[in-house]
Amino acid sequence: MISSKSNKQIKLIRRLQTRKAREETGLFVVEGIQAVVEALAYPDRVEMVVVCPDLLTSAIGYEAVRRAAHAPDIHVLETTGAVFESIASREHPQGIAAVVRQQWHHLEQTGRASDPLWVALDAVQYPGNLGTILRTCDAVGASGVILLDAAADPYHPTAVRAARNAIFTQKLVHTDFDSFAHWKQRTGYQLVGASGDAPCAYRDIAYPLPMILLLGSEGEGLASQRRALCDAAVSIPMRGRSDSLNVAVAAAVILYEILAQNP
Amino acid sequence: MISSKSNKQIKLIRRLQTRKAREETGLFVVEGIQAVVEALAYPDRVEMVVVCPDLLTSAIGYEAVRRAAHAPDIHVLETTGAVFESIASREHPQGIAAVVRQQWHHLEQTGRASDPLWVALDAVQYPGNLGTILRTCDAVGASGVILLDAAADPYHPTAVRAARNAIFTQKLVHTDFDSFAHWKQRTGYQLVGASGDAPCAYRDIAYPLPMILLLGSEGEGLASQRRALCDAAVSIPMRGRSDSLNVAVAAAVILYEILAQNP
Repeated sequence: MISSKSNKQIKLIRRLQTRKAREETGLFVVEGIQAVVEALAYPDRVEMVVVCPDLLTSAIGYEAVRRAAHAPDIHVLETTGAVFESIASREHPQGIAAVVRQQWHHLEQTGRASDPLWVALDAVQYPGNLGTILRTCDAVGASGVILLDAAADPYHPTAVRAARNAIFTQKLVHTDFDSFAHWKQRTGYQLVGASGDAPCAYRDIAYPLPMILLLGSEGEGLASQRRALCDAAVSIPMRGRSDSLNVAVAAAVILYEILAQNP
Repeated sequence: MISSKSNKQIKLIRRLQTRKAREETGLFVVEGIQAVVEALAYPDRVEMVVVCPDLLTSAIGYEAVRRAAHAPDIHVLETTGAVFESIASREHPQGIAAVVRQQWHHLEQTGRASDPLWVALDAVQYPGNLGTILRTCDAVGASGVILLDAAADPYHPTAVRAARNAIFTQKLVHTDFDSFAHWKQRTGYQLVGASGDAPCAYRDIAYPLPMILLLGSEGEGLASQRRALCDAAVSIPMRGRSDSLNVAVAAAVILYEILAQNP
């Protein structure tokens, strides 16, 4: 039972709230009963389960701890309430968390046949939007998300929470725009960009697979250099006073049209 | 120039971060240049503009302050950096905020002809989701959102931020489920519920206006008592491992099908 907030492993977990520590270690944290149960469906990726008996009241939670304790390479830590609260990123923590290894893919490991649909994101800033896009990608059967240049971290706690299970099911690629452009040209994926000022409405074109849907950042939309690489650009009709949608909403609206055309 | 964090008006603004104070006063806070400019398009609703010369560097921001100072009933406060940071809900504040009067509508003030499309939300919990739904409602030309029973506060800072301009353009109604049910029966709006287990896919039915799209909470979806009131229930196809979408994403996917059918 760990009762010191300066325990070495507790300090590591706390540091994982920073992007720097996540990148240095290749680890991230999931919190809560449902998230830990989902992580344990990928036991090879789970490094550690942290449980706080003073906070954890759920039988499902204890069953997850029991399974983790029987797995060969998963470390189980018990902590006091004060220590657990020092590592939790939410209020009212459920008393269970896990440290999980990140998984990144390279464009070269992907294939047109096995990966017919991707979302590429240029400079998306908010982890919550990125996580929500991952969740929608899972729902429409996409392969994953390609993050271009500077982008939010999909392993940020807010992104992990918004993604739900999709943080495990979706492939994540991080690359620079030039490598992406070369790969797209070589592999022949269709690239469709979402852009508020595109004259073509998103329901008025065909989306033959394999394809990639490209979206820009929350503030700026799709930069013209990015748009030049696209085979087509589409916009989403707007009837109100605002001139843009939330980026995760825009992704979902177009992805569901792609799914409707490719059932 | 206010330099004390315990100034009466500064304390009021800080208290407006709590729901209790927002409900007692009927006020809320918008932060940042864009949000204040949008608020000033409704000058009758703006009570106060707070500016921090040490933080505000934007000419557009100062133009907004100048306009506010010339409006008959808007109070302009200047504060020091430390005082402004004590009222800001985000890091790196832009040095401008406004206190705005909330606006609520009653079901009886609405009409089938002027308000052909509503979203009703049963027990939506997260302000960010509520704000994003408001933003999408504006985009599809809906009239507003009807909040049933316990629900997140649309004037929560996170909801206001996510809603953008839609916090002003969309009508907000808060009512209990029984009143809503009576009003729906009396007015003859079609009520379509979104429910993960509905056998009918959202693209397979017609959406004649006037209608209301009803969505349940993030965790629980649509309760059976709510669903019993619906004229139809629709689900959104899912191809992945997850069994649900983010509620703001689900709302957007169905709203854009409604818009496509009612161009």
